[in-house]
Amino acid sequence: MREDILIAQMHGGSCRDDVRLDFSVNLNPLGLPRTVMQALREGMTGWNAYPDPECRKLVRQLAARLQLGEKQIVCGNGAAELIYLLVQAVRPGCVLVQAPSFSEYERAAAGIGCEVRQAALRQEENFTVDMRELTVQIGPDVDMVFLCNPNNPTGRAVSADEVALLAEACEKNGSLLVLDECFCELSDDPARCSMIRRLDDFPHLVILRAFTKTYAMAGLRLGYACVSDRGLAEDLKDKRQPWSVSLPAQQAAVAALADADYLDEGRAMIREGRACLSEGLARLGFTVYPSSANFLLFSDPDELWPGQLGSACLARGILLRDCRSFAGLGNGFYRIGVRAPQDNAALLETLNAICNSRKDCGKANFSSQHAN
Amino acid sequence: MREDILIAQMHGGSCRDDVRLDFSVNLNPLGLPRTVMQALREGMTGWNAYPDPECRKLVRQLAARLQLGEKQIVCGNGAAELIYLLVQAVRPGCVLVQAPSFSEYERAAAGIGCEVRQAALRQEENFTVDMRELTVQIGPDVDMVFLCNPNNPTGRAVSADEVALLAEACEKNGSLLVLDECFCELSDDPARCSMIRRLDDFPHLVILRAFTKTYAMAGLRLGYACVSDRGLAEDLKDKRQPWSVSLPAQQAAVAALADADYLDEGRAMIREGRACLSEGLARLGFTVYPSSANFLLFSDPDELWPGQLGSACLARGILLRDCRSFAGLGNGFYRIGVRAPQDNAALLETLNAICNSRKDCGKANFSSQHAN
Repeated sequence: MREDILIAQMHGGSCRDDVRLDFSVNLNPLGLPRTVMQALREGMTGWNAYPDPECRKLVRQLAARLQLGEKQIVCGNGAAELIYLLVQAVRPGCVLVQAPSFSEYERAAAGIGCEVRQAALRQEENFTVDMRELTVQIGPDVDMVFLCNPNNPTGRAVSADEVALLAEACEKNGSLLVLDECFCELSDDPARCSMIRRLDDFPHLVILRAFTKTYAMAGLRLGYACVSDRGLAEDLKDKRQPWSVSLPAQQAAVAALADADYLDEGRAMIREGRACLSEGLARLGFTVYPSSANFLLFSDPDELWPGQLGSACLARGILLRDCRSFAGLGNGFYRIGVRAPQDNAALLETLNAICNSRKDCGKANFSSQHAN
Repeated sequence: MREDILIAQMHGGSCRDDVRLDFSVNLNPLGLPRTVMQALREGMTGWNAYPDPECRKLVRQLAARLQLGEKQIVCGNGAAELIYLLVQAVRPGCVLVQAPSFSEYERAAAGIGCEVRQAALRQEENFTVDMRELTVQIGPDVDMVFLCNPNNPTGRAVSADEVALLAEACEKNGSLLVLDECFCELSDDPARCSMIRRLDDFPHLVILRAFTKTYAMAGLRLGYACVSDRGLAEDLKDKRQPWSVSLPAQQAAVAALADADYLDEGRAMIREGRACLSEGLARLGFTVYPSSANFLLFSDPDELWPGQLGSACLARGILLRDCRSFAGLGNGFYRIGVRAPQDNAALLETLNAICNSRKDCGKANFSSQHAN
C-alpha cells in the first residue's frame, strides 16, 4: 500500500487529490461556517503579526459561554497538542485507556515511555463502556485515565451521570481523568453527555474540546482544555511553547462562536444522515454499531482479505477509515463520518455496487468450481 | 505594568490595538508576500480538511532548494515547537546556552527539569561570541548546545567557519548542536553565516529555520529543522503530535518559496533601514551595538528608572522590546526590529522628542535646585 494512503488510514484525512469523497474524517458535515470564512478574509492582512499566546479574546468568550473561570481554559493547536502537553506535564507512570479508542492517547503516553494499560470494550456489547467494571481497574498505580465520550471510533456515548462515577473513582485514587469531549457538541444530546457543568466538582478532571471537529476547522487547528485545577492549568501554560495557536485559528474560533444556528443545523444533518447510513449499511449486510456521534462504526463480515472493502471504495474515489490501527478492532472494521445527504447516498450506492460485484464473483467461482 | 504589556515585552509582539508602531518584533519589514496572500485567498475554502502531517509538498520544495534529503527536514509550528520537541526527544541532562540569547532555549530546557549553563557574552566586546572560549565550555556533561546565529537580541553573526569549530567540538564530545538560523536569511550575508551546506559533515548538528521571521508569517507559524542524523529526524516525527502545522501555514510557505524577489528586496530594505536607525540612535546619545541582522540592540545610558524609555515610547504608541527579560542584559537595553523607512523615521523622531523633554526636565531640575 502506498505510504500516503497508509497515513490517511492511520489518521483520517486524505491529503490527496484523487479522493472524491473523504469519509475517513469525522468533522461537522456543514464545513467551515460562513462567519468564519468572512473573518478569515478580513483578518488575513494582519497575519504577519504574532498571535496572542494567551488567546485572551477567545478564552473570554469560551469562559462566558461555558460558565468557567478564564484561568481554567487552556487553548492549544488542536486537542492533540493538549493530549501531548498533559502527558508531558503530568508525566504519569501508568495511564489507562479504552480499546478501541483514539490512538493519540496511547501514542503520547508511549512517547514519554509510560506504561499504557488497555481496558477492553466488548464487541458483543456494542463497545459500550461498563463504568462499574472500568472503575475497578483504577488501581493505585494508575496516574491518568483517558475517556473519549462519545468514543472514537465507536460513536458510543455514556451519560454524564455515568462519567461522574468514574470521576469519583479517579478523585479517590488521585488519578487525573482526561475526558475527551471533542465529539460531544455534535452528538445527539450534548447536555446529557457533557461534564462541563460539573467540572468544579472534580479537582482531578480535565475536559478536552475541539473546534476542529465541531466547526469543521481541521486545517486551522484549535482545541481547548477545561481544567478543574487552576495549578495544573498554569503548569500546562508554563510548559508549552508560547505561540502554538495561530492567528487564523484564533480569529476563526471567535467567529465560529458567534454563529448561532450552525451547531443546530449540523446536528440535524448528522442525525438524519446517520439514520440513513445505518439503515443502508444494515440492508447491504454490514454489521452496524449503534452511535450517537457524527460518525459510524461498521464491519464487513464478507471481507476476503484485510482492507478489501476500503481498497474497493478507494478505487472508486471514496476513502473510508480502515480501523485496523485501532487497538481492539480486527480486520473488516471501518469508520465513516456522516456527510451531506447526496454524499451519503453516493457512498451507499458505491457499497451496493461493490457488494453486487462480490456476489457475481461468488457465482462465477461457484460455476467454475462446479465445472471442474 | 499591565499584564498584556508584560507579555508583549517578554515575547515581542503586542496583540494590542493601541500600539501604532510595533518595533518589538523582528520580522521581514515587507510583511506577507503577495504570493502568500493570493495562495491563502485561494486555499481558504479547503481549510476544513486536515493538514498533511508530513508537510510533503513543502518538504519536497525545501529539500530541493537546500540540497538536503527529504528525510532530514522536519516541519513544525514555528521554530519554537521544534525547540521544545528537540529537548523532549533528546532529554539532555545539561544544556549550554549563550547569555543574552533567545530565552525559549532555556525555558524549554527548564520545562523538563534539565540543568542550564550560560556562556556569557561580554558587553565590552559588543556581545561577540568568542568561539574558542565557547568550545572550552563544552565539557563531558554538556549534552546539548544552543547557538543563535545571528544572535537574538544582539544581532551579532559569526561566520560558518567559526561555527564549524564549535560543531567539531560538539562532535568530539557527542553533544547535539542546535544552531538557530532563524535570522540568517534576513542577514547581510546568509551564505557566509549559514551551515546548511555543511550539515552532512556533522552528525550531531540540527539547524533551525523559520518562515515566521523570513517571510513575516508570525501569525501563521511555520518553522523547520534540518537534521543531520536521520534517526533523530525520525524520532522527532515520532514524538510530536501529528497535525502541528496548519493547512494555511503549509500553503503560505509553499507560496512564499515561489516568490523570487521578496528576500532580496527585504534584505535591501533592512540594510538601509538599519544603517539609518544606527546612525540616528547614536546621534541621540544611545549606545548602539553592531548588528548584521534585521534588528538592533541599543542601550539608554540616561534611564532614570528601569523601563523608562520603553514606557515613554509606549505612551506615544510605539512598542520597543524591553530586554530586561534576557539573561545577561541589565536595565536600559532595548531591541528594535528594522521597519519600513517612514516607520524608522517616526521612531527616531519620537526618541528625539523624548530626549529633548528629558533635557528640559534636567534644566528645570537644575533651575529649581539653584533657586532653593
